Amino acid sequence: MKVVIVGGVAGGMSAATRLRRLDEDAEIVVLEKGPYVSFANCGLPYYLSGEIADRSDLIVQTADKLRQRFNLDVRPNHEVTQILPADHAVVVRHDGQESREHYDRLILSPGATPVVPPITGLDIAENVHVLRNIPDLDGLMAGLKADQPALVVGGGFIGLEVAEALTKRGVAVTVVEQAEHVLPALDTEMAVFVENELRQHGVRVVTGQAVAAFQDRGQTAVLTDGTKISTGLTLLAVGVRPDTHLAKGAGLKLGLRGGLVVDHHYQTSDPAIYAVGDAIVVNQVLDGTPTLIPLASPANRQGRQVADNLAGLDRPNRGSLGTAIVRTFDLTAAATGFSEQQAKEKGLAVSVVHVRGTSHAGYFPGGTPLLLKLIFNTDSGAIYGAQGVGKAGVDKRLDVLATAIKGGLTVADLPELELTYAPPFGSAKDPVNMLGYAAQNVMDGLSHSIQWSELPAALQAGKRVLDVRNTAELSEGVFPNSVTIPLNELRDRLDELDPKQAYVVSCFSGQRSYMAERILRQHGFDVVNLDGAFNLYRAVRPQDLVKF
Amino acid sequence: MKVVIVGGVAGGMSAATRLRRLDEDAEIVVLEKGPYVSFANCGLPYYLSGEIADRSDLIVQTADKLRQRFNLDVRPNHEVTQILPADHAVVVRHDGQESREHYDRLILSPGATPVVPPITGLDIAENVHVLRNIPDLDGLMAGLKADQPALVVGGGFIGLEVAEALTKRGVAVTVVEQAEHVLPALDTEMAVFVENELRQHGVRVVTGQAVAAFQDRGQTAVLTDGTKISTGLTLLAVGVRPDTHLAKGAGLKLGLRGGLVVDHHYQTSDPAIYAVGDAIVVNQVLDGTPTLIPLASPANRQGRQVADNLAGLDRPNRGSLGTAIVRTFDLTAAATGFSEQQAKEKGLAVSVVHVRGTSHAGYFPGGTPLLLKLIFNTDSGAIYGAQGVGKAGVDKRLDVLATAIKGGLTVADLPELELTYAPPFGSAKDPVNMLGYAAQNVMDGLSHSIQWSELPAALQAGKRVLDVRNTAELSEGVFPNSVTIPLNELRDRLDELDPKQAYVVSCFSGQRSYMAERILRQHGFDVVNLDGAFNLYRAVRPQDLVKF
Repeated sequence: MKVVIVGGVAGGMSAATRLRRLDEDAEIVVLEKGPYVSFANCGLPYYLSGEIADRSDLIVQTADKLRQRFNLDVRPNHEVTQILPADHAVVVRHDGQESREHYDRLILSPGATPVVPPITGLDIAENVHVLRNIPDLDGLMAGLKADQPALVVGGGFIGLEVAEALTKRGVAVTVVEQAEHVLPALDTEMAVFVENELRQHGVRVVTGQAVAAFQDRGQTAVLTDGTKISTGLTLLAVGVRPDTHLAKGAGLKLGLRGGLVVDHHYQTSDPAIYAVGDAIVVNQVLDGTPTLIPLASPANRQGRQVADNLAGLDRPNRGSLGTAIVRTFDLTAAATGFSEQQAKEKGLAVSVVHVRGTSHAGYFPGGTPLLLKLIFNTDSGAIYGAQGVGKAGVDKRLDVLATAIKGGLTVADLPELELTYAPPFGSAKDPVNMLGYAAQNVMDGLSHSIQWSELPAALQAGKRVLDVRNTAELSEGVFPNSVTIPLNELRDRLDELDPKQAYVVSCFSGQRSYMAERILRQHGFDVVNLDGAFNLYRAVRPQDLVKF
Repeated sequence: MKVVIVGGVAGGMSAATRLRRLDEDAEIVVLEKGPYVSFANCGLPYYLSGEIADRSDLIVQTADKLRQRFNLDVRPNHEVTQILPADHAVVVRHDGQESREHYDRLILSPGATPVVPPITGLDIAENVHVLRNIPDLDGLMAGLKADQPALVVGGGFIGLEVAEALTKRGVAVTVVEQAEHVLPALDTEMAVFVENELRQHGVRVVTGQAVAAFQDRGQTAVLTDGTKISTGLTLLAVGVRPDTHLAKGAGLKLGLRGGLVVDHHYQTSDPAIYAVGDAIVVNQVLDGTPTLIPLASPANRQGRQVADNLAGLDRPNRGSLGTAIVRTFDLTAAATGFSEQQAKEKGLAVSVVHVRGTSHAGYFPGGTPLLLKLIFNTDSGAIYGAQGVGKAGVDKRLDVLATAIKGGLTVADLPELELTYAPPFGSAKDPVNMLGYAAQNVMDGLSHSIQWSELPAALQAGKRVLDVRNTAELSEGVFPNSVTIPLNELRDRLDELDPKQAYVVSCFSGQRSYMAERILRQHGFDVVNLDGAFNLYRAVRPQDLVKF
C-alpha cells in the first residue's frame, strides 16, 4: 500500500509515524510545501519573545531523522498543486518542476491558513505579516524594529502571544480586536482580566474596532472609527480558515466555512482520500453539531486515528471539544467547551457560576487567586463549558473540567472529585469542587444569583445593593446607593434593612454574599446574590463604582 | 432542632457551617476536645519545616469568628467522654468538670488517631511524638534539637513530610519503614524514586524493618534485624485508625478496622446519630467494597453532605476513591485509586503501563520529566488507578486521572481528552493522552510488555535484552548479556539478531523500545517490550546492571 500524506506537521506527521508502527511494509510519502516538517507551530511566538532561545528547538523532527527512524519518505519543499482523484495521483511542484505522485490512499492534513481581511491599502502595505510557520516567523523577526511601534490586528490566542513577545522585545504594541473584548473564546468578564493584564504591561488594547485601511505603505492603520495608529510592523491574526483549496479543486465535499467533510473514519467524499487536522469539519462533542476546532491536540489525535483506520483498526472520530489556553504576561487564561455566549446563542438553558479560589491552600505561602467560571444546563446540570483566569493553577483546573465534560459528568459530580491535596498543590475543597457546590446551590434553589451584566437593569428596576464587605474593604469603591453591613454583623442589624426593598447582595468574591443571601432569604427578604461580586464587577465595569 | 457535633475540624466544621447556611434556626453546638477548631492539619509539617512561618496561619478559623459569622456555639477544650443514646445526650468534660449536653441529632466527626505500635521500651522512651494536631506540633517543636539525629518511624505521607521538614531544620533524619518501600500507597517502582530523592537529600532510608525496641529512654531504637539507631527525637507515623472509642462505648455498629458503619446518608446504627470523616467506613467507588480513606477531601465533602441530609436534602454518600499527593524535597509523588499491588490482591485482571513525559512541551524551557503509571483492566480498559512522580505537573495529571476514574472513563477515553496546551503548560499529546495510547496498544495486542519485576525471570528463561539506545547512552549502564543496536539502525541490522532468540527490547524510557518491538514483531521475532525500560529498571534494581 502506498500512502501519500499532504502536510507534514501535527496531523500529517502523527499519521505517518503511527502508520509506520502499524505497518512496516507500507510506502509512506509525506509531501510538505514548506521547508520544515514536524515543527512546533505553537512555539513560534515564544521564539519571538526570546524564551525559546534556539531556533532549532522549534524543529522537532527533520526529514532525515524521520527517514532513519520511521523509514518515511519525507519531502519538504514539495507543494501539492493538484489532486487527480480519478488517477489516484497528486501533482507535486518542487524546484519549479511538476511531477505526479501516485497513491493508493491519500491523507490530507493541510491545516488552516490565516485569514487576511480585505483592508484597503493592504496590498501595498509593507512589513505586514501573518504567523503560521517558520518562514513567517523569520519574516516577522526580520521586520522587527525596536524603536518603532507594532500593531497586532486580532486579539485571539496568537495575537496576544505575539503582543506579549513584541513587548518583551521592547516594542510598543497596540492590539486591535473587532469583538467587544479580546479572546473571543472567553466571555467578556473573563477576558477583561486579560485586557487589564495587557494594559498593565504597557500594551494598548483597542476593542470593538477593526482596521479599515492602511496608509503610508502600512505605516498608518486607520480604524473603523477613524483613529489612526502608527505601526512599523503589523501582524494580522484575525483567525484562520481551513486550507482546502486542493480539496475543493478535486471536487471533495466541503462543509462549514469551507472545511473538509469527512466521515467518522476520516474518509472524505472520495473513498481513497482521508483528511485530518485543522482543515476538517468535526462534531462538537457537546451537542454533535459540525464545527471547526483548529487546535493541536485534536489534530495529533486525528492523525493517529486515521492511520489506525487505514491499518484496519476501527478507530472512529468521536468528536472534539475545544480546549485552549494562553499565557499573557503573568496571567493565564483558558477555556473549554462552549462559552456562555455560545451556549446562549445555541438556545441552551444556561446558568453560570463564578468561583474565586486560590491556586493552592491559602495557608501555604505562594498561593495566588484564580477565577473560574462554569457554564451548565440549569435543569440537568450538564456542563457546557468552563473558563479560568489566574496566575497559576488555571491549566490544572481547566484540564479537570475538560475531562469532566468529555466524561459526561454533571455539576453534581464536581464536588465528588477527589483531587490531589497537600498544601503546596491544592485545597481540601478545590476550586473545582467549589464550582460544583455553587452550581448545585443554584440548581437546588438555595441561591438565586444575577450576573454582572444584569446588575444595571436590576438597579434600574429598584433593587438595591447590600454590600457585606468589612468597612476597611470599602475604600476600594462601592456600588452606588448601596447599603453596607459587614457579614458578621448582619444577623444583629437586620432591622436596618427594609423588608419591602429587594436587595442584591455583594461582597468581594461572592462567598460572603452567598452566606448573606442565605441569612436574608431565611428571614423572608427578597434577595439575590451578585455572582462574582465586587471583584468581578470592578474588573468589567469600574466606571459604575463610586467612592465610599 | 439542636445538633451537636463532636469534632471541630474538617468534617465537623464543614457540617456545622453548611448546616447554618441551610438553617438559620438550628441550634448548633460544636464540641472539640482540643484547644483549636478548624485548623490546617495538613499544614502541620510545613510549619515544622519553616515554610509556613506564622503559627497562626495554621488556625483557619477561631471559635469567636465562627460564632460571629455562623452563629455557631463552638466549644474548644470540650471533650465528649460518653454518648448516652437513650437519653439523646453526650457527657462533656471541660475544665475538669463533667456535664451533659442534649441533642436532637448528633454528628460524630472524631477523625483518626495515630497508631502507636507496641514497641518494647516505648512506655519509658522520651521525646517520642505523634503528629495529629497543633499541641502535637508544639511538642515536636519543643523537642527539636538540631545537634541530635531524629528518627521517623513510618514512611507514609506524614512521615516523609516530617522527614523533609526536619532535614530542612538541619537535623539528620532516619526513616524506618516496615514495608518493602516507603509510600505504601504507591507501587515499588514508583516509590523508589522518592526513596532516591530522600537519600539524595541526606535522609537515611531503611525499609523492610520495624522498630522492635527503644533503649536508653528512647535514645536508641533497635530494629527488627538488630540494627541500632541513635535518635534525639522520634516521630511515630505508622498510620492511623478510626477514633471510634466513643461510638464503641455507645454500642454503635463498627466495621472494618473499627471504623464506624454508616448508611448512605451518614446515619449510624442509631438513627439520631450521624458520622463523617476519617472515622467512618466508606465504599470504594472502584468496586464498592468497604474501606477506610482518612483524607481531607472526602471528610470535607462528607461534612457538607451530612448537613444537607439533616436539612432534608437527599445527598447520598457516593463513595470515595482516595487520591493523595506528597512533596518530598524537589519531587512530587501522587496516587489515586488502587495500586497495582492492591488491584492484584483483589484478584482483578490487571495490566499496567508506564509513560515518561515532560511537565510541558519539550521544546519550551523549564520542562522536567515525569513518570506516570496507569493500572487498568486488561479486558475492559476500566481504570483502577494511577500514580506519578516528577518535579512538576504530577498534581495536574493525577487530578485528570482521578477525574477520569470518578467519571468511569476507560483507557480508550484518555487519548480523547483535550487538555490545555500551550508550550508553557503542556504538550499537544499530553502524558495522560500517552498513557491511553500505551494502554490501548497493550489491549489491542500491538505491544506485549513485561514489567521490571518480570525481567529477571524472563532472562532466566532464556530471553535476551535488545537495547536500542544510542551508543552514547550506554555509558549509564546496560543489562547483562544484552545486544545493543540503536533504533535508527535496527531495520538495517536485523540480520545481526537470532530469529530463534526471544528478545526483551529496552531503551531509555520505553518509547523507542516500543517502536523497536513493532519493527521486530512485524518481522516475525519473538519479542516483548520492557515497560518503563532502562530508566525505570535502573531506579529499582541498579545492582542488576553492568558497565558497557
